[in-house]
Amino acid sequence: MTDSQRTPNDDLNHDRGGALATVEGLMRAVPDFPQPGILFRDITPVLQDAAGLNAALGLLSGHVDDLRGKVDRIIGVESRGFLFGMPLAVRLGVGFVPVRKPGKLPAAYIEETYALEYGEDRLQIHEDAVALGDRVIVVDDLLATGGTAAATCALVERLGGVVEACLFLIELDGLKGRTRLPGRRIESVLHY
Amino acid sequence: MTDSQRTPNDDLNHDRGGALATVEGLMRAVPDFPQPGILFRDITPVLQDAAGLNAALGLLSGHVDDLRGKVDRIIGVESRGFLFGMPLAVRLGVGFVPVRKPGKLPAAYIEETYALEYGEDRLQIHEDAVALGDRVIVVDDLLATGGTAAATCALVERLGGVVEACLFLIELDGLKGRTRLPGRRIESVLHY
Repeated sequence: MTDSQRTPNDDLNHDRGGALATVEGLMRAVPDFPQPGILFRDITPVLQDAAGLNAALGLLSGHVDDLRGKVDRIIGVESRGFLFGMPLAVRLGVGFVPVRKPGKLPAAYIEETYALEYGEDRLQIHEDAVALGDRVIVVDDLLATGGTAAATCALVERLGGVVEACLFLIELDGLKGRTRLPGRRIESVLHY
Repeated sequence: MTDSQRTPNDDLNHDRGGALATVEGLMRAVPDFPQPGILFRDITPVLQDAAGLNAALGLLSGHVDDLRGKVDRIIGVESRGFLFGMPLAVRLGVGFVPVRKPGKLPAAYIEETYALEYGEDRLQIHEDAVALGDRVIVVDDLLATGGTAAATCALVERLGGVVEACLFLIELDGLKGRTRLPGRRIESVLHY
């Protein structure tokens, strides 16, 4: 293909491919963390590289480009959901709401309990963080079993908010997290 | 003063005053959190307001505007240091490094122990997160007693990095955190 045949869409796809290659090339797989048999997908080499960080953020925002101007809040799940949630909120020109583990939120909150492999945990959101009818995107670094994302969506909806999409940098396809989020729009940049 | 007498600096100061008023107006003081007698400075109303978030980020980056193009990394302390650290890294066009509590970093790390009111805690950084001679800004939401900031600076310097500034949204002046950071450049947007 010559340059004269390229369309803006070709350029976009080319840029997107370059950004994906950049991010994939920086990801680090750490065996046996946090426990034996688990291959941990470490995003810190992406974050600490200026080009990698910019590429990852561009890919994430590209996945929800159609929602630009149509959402009111970004919801980020403690603590790695804060990492991309905040710059995404800045980029989209909307506010950011942290969903936190117990004991961290100082004002009136609601909470959801969700199952872990062994036992359970809780997530909390301030009652005034989402208003009736607010449209939001839930952001986290990783979609694994889907437990924290499902609990976060439930928190938003109990406050009257509408979850327009759940957005992840990484999805571990084998753990079938999507099945815990039926009927929801799920966007992931990388699949393992 | 007429408009014709205004200089770009006046406009900047005017904007800065407006941004400060926006952020201060959104801050929430929560009595007796996390324990009786503590007045907690809650930044979540700032974050969840698009104008507040933008104003806070603008003020933070304004405090280190002279370092634009002269730093290599932003260092953010878990977990509220991730909130402004990441968008600041994006704005400055540099990478971001998370300093984390024990058990979170998967690759080779070093750690520092620091004193809490009762007992002690540890902070860790990946060994490859800062290279010899890297110039960094340490970012957190709050400067209180200065323990976590001092530990974070120590981690950076053990890896050969240079701390150009420590940047906070809030400084609790009465706790004298600056005395734990002697000789360092400390920038805070709000003082209580």
